[in-house]
Amino acid sequence: MSWLESIQYQSQQWGQRALDRHLRLGVTGLSGAGKTAFITSLVHQLTLGDQPEHLPFFAVVQQGRYLGGRLANNQPLAFPRFPYEQNVQYLQQQPATWPPSTAGWSQLNLTLRYKSAAGWRSKIQQRSELQLELVDYPGEWLLDLPMLQQDYQQWSTFCWTLFEQPHRQAEAQVFADLLANTDLNDVSELQLQRLTDAYLNLLHTFRENAATFLHQPGRLLVPGELAGAPMLKLFPLLPAQLKQDSPLLQQLSEHYHSYCDYVIKPFYRQHFSRLDRQVVLVDCLSALNAGFAAIQELQQALGLIMQSFRYGPASILGRLFKPQINKVLFAASKADHVTPEQHKALTLLLQQLLQQPIKHSHYASAKSEAMALAAIRASSAGFVQHAGQKSPCISGVELDSGNKVTLFPGEVPAKLPDTALFNRHPFQFPALAPLQHSGQQPMPHVRMDHALEFLLGDKLQ
Amino acid sequence: MSWLESIQYQSQQWGQRALDRHLRLGVTGLSGAGKTAFITSLVHQLTLGDQPEHLPFFAVVQQGRYLGGRLANNQPLAFPRFPYEQNVQYLQQQPATWPPSTAGWSQLNLTLRYKSAAGWRSKIQQRSELQLELVDYPGEWLLDLPMLQQDYQQWSTFCWTLFEQPHRQAEAQVFADLLANTDLNDVSELQLQRLTDAYLNLLHTFRENAATFLHQPGRLLVPGELAGAPMLKLFPLLPAQLKQDSPLLQQLSEHYHSYCDYVIKPFYRQHFSRLDRQVVLVDCLSALNAGFAAIQELQQALGLIMQSFRYGPASILGRLFKPQINKVLFAASKADHVTPEQHKALTLLLQQLLQQPIKHSHYASAKSEAMALAAIRASSAGFVQHAGQKSPCISGVELDSGNKVTLFPGEVPAKLPDTALFNRHPFQFPALAPLQHSGQQPMPHVRMDHALEFLLGDKLQ
Repeated sequence: MSWLESIQYQSQQWGQRALDRHLRLGVTGLSGAGKTAFITSLVHQLTLGDQPEHLPFFAVVQQGRYLGGRLANNQPLAFPRFPYEQNVQYLQQQPATWPPSTAGWSQLNLTLRYKSAAGWRSKIQQRSELQLELVDYPGEWLLDLPMLQQDYQQWSTFCWTLFEQPHRQAEAQVFADLLANTDLNDVSELQLQRLTDAYLNLLHTFRENAATFLHQPGRLLVPGELAGAPMLKLFPLLPAQLKQDSPLLQQLSEHYHSYCDYVIKPFYRQHFSRLDRQVVLVDCLSALNAGFAAIQELQQALGLIMQSFRYGPASILGRLFKPQINKVLFAASKADHVTPEQHKALTLLLQQLLQQPIKHSHYASAKSEAMALAAIRASSAGFVQHAGQKSPCISGVELDSGNKVTLFPGEVPAKLPDTALFNRHPFQFPALAPLQHSGQQPMPHVRMDHALEFLLGDKLQ
Repeated sequence: MSWLESIQYQSQQWGQRALDRHLRLGVTGLSGAGKTAFITSLVHQLTLGDQPEHLPFFAVVQQGRYLGGRLANNQPLAFPRFPYEQNVQYLQQQPATWPPSTAGWSQLNLTLRYKSAAGWRSKIQQRSELQLELVDYPGEWLLDLPMLQQDYQQWSTFCWTLFEQPHRQAEAQVFADLLANTDLNDVSELQLQRLTDAYLNLLHTFRENAATFLHQPGRLLVPGELAGAPMLKLFPLLPAQLKQDSPLLQQLSEHYHSYCDYVIKPFYRQHFSRLDRQVVLVDCLSALNAGFAAIQELQQALGLIMQSFRYGPASILGRLFKPQINKVLFAASKADHVTPEQHKALTLLLQQLLQQPIKHSHYASAKSEAMALAAIRASSAGFVQHAGQKSPCISGVELDSGNKVTLFPGEVPAKLPDTALFNRHPFQFPALAPLQHSGQQPMPHVRMDHALEFLLGDKLQ
């Protein structure tokens, strides 16, 4: 977008924001948390699901004031567009499949029409409009934020603390040995390349392991157009190697600062600082399946992610930008993979993982909410009779085998489980295919109406 | 790069440019023309090849005034860096292999030191420095330039004129049939996606065919961070479909204009307009191997590429930017794949392909030169005795088989061959592996000293 066009586009947006008719909603989550399904469902609910019986807790629909939503015709032609229609096609295939997840960011614009509930607008306008911009971006980009508050030495130390954890130690040892035998005076291109390749290899190994969530720097794994930039030759030196100055330490420090300036800050400036509201999706069930270390690391990753939503005057974000996010929804996704009476426990577990820091933070600027939901249903819930007792169960199609199953997937712990519990009771929540869905039918969900009400309800008054 | 840092970086450059100590050299060519080998060799010659017997026509070396070159320490950390050291490693492997070619653009900075030949600088300075920035980018980006002068209808008509050529017609027919059966009122996302996928498929088929060089829009094949942007849903409608207005025609016209504004113009503004000199590499021998249609299309592609170097006040470039390229070297690469007495013919053929339009153009702002060269030698030249006669030959290692061969690869036509010649005499120039090259030895070449003298000689006075 040219400078002039960008100004024009932004002032259009500002105009609408002044009339309170514009909302930019970010959707994020760590890889596999269900961003694609969430946005696809959200768009489907707002365009085809506006029946009161389908969205009972979405007030504007319940009150008969919702006039409908459609994809907007002001979609920016030069930005990646969220592939909504293609995703719906995947869900309508026989058998239905989950749409593929995407790397990078994308945007989709919607126009929502409604009748105002009261006030001057209801008097002078037949109908009101809300322009909704949905922005999808990887949660991993938020994990880079703490790097802005560290220098290269602090970051390296943090990395090795992480790598010393039992579930990471064995894999990290090879890289540690390589570093230990490295000449710190050699800053040749080939040396930097060799060590970066080894570190990238380690990150790939970690990522394939379901128990890890923290991979810094985030763009090393998905460099995009930064491929080949010297600043991406970045890896942590061993703590002992940080104690005295060396050419390699100096070189890596330079790369680290460039990464902060050319990657992290522009993301916050260009994408994050323009968001009004934010959804963070968390897949607690997969983390429980992966074990104690996974739950611990998920908690740590969420703690880092939440730094992006605490931006009082003293915070790094408050000093650098003026974020304007005033509502954050933390959602435990895939709630339909457990029986309904477990949803309460799932929500409590998510709150424990979040340590509820936002509500209690002195600098909290955003209202937050935690809930369990399923954007697109993959199961139906019911009961089985067993030995004269009625037990809850879910029915669906197993993702791997394609077999129909009816099962009780297990209980969700309502608080953070300790090692002992994992040893006694390994979790095995299933992976299910989406329910078959056809054409113009509303998309079955769990609690998307609650999510819509929290995220949009006050803007559709 | 932040706004302020970018200003600082640029004013540093301007400072050096005022003292005539800064030169930004673009290197381009259509895929497979030898860009990677050229830049690797150029850097090697300037850092390790500065012996008079190795570069006899490079005056600053010949006159003993060249003090040496090294990779500069002002390499921008956030831009893709040309992987020079890695490329040299490929050439030093056993057996030597060509370095992989790259997509996108990259940069490498060099500092050259020399003694001035005469004038005030030789009196007051022990040594002078030239900052040389090498910028590598795909020639395909230049092929998009003519789109700026066309509207969507004109571009579509141009595409179908091209697709009607005998070597393209059969493959294009499938796409033409698909378009003919398309509802022009349907501008749904899925329809645009389906047709774009089909067009991309056609471009892929064309590209695999050695006889085609023109693929527009260039970024459809390598979208990078533009992946998913609506403007990349772009394909030519059939000429008959352009005659009356339709929703699909309107939609594609919008995408076309966005592509011009957000892809083509920024490339010229950000990369091209800052170049001082330019090398365009052309692989004439592969085109001869591929036949008459290939030679014709190569000529057409070069004609389009050369529009970027004709930028008088009336040209599109002259109106949009202020390019400053004042020297253009057109080089027929891989000259060592024919015997030395054929080099003259190879150069003449290249000049015919270029139709020498630059020298005669009223708007020519750049001095141009055409020559045959080999950046990195893949053969040694000699003679064989045959039936009492001495015949020229070359020896090298066949790329595919790895076998040592000694052969006379054939004559190069000194002017554009017609169909009849191709029928009588199919060309079969070989593909050879690079000569084995070790460590600190100067890299064997053909006429790189001439190229260096043309590109840098006057700046090293």
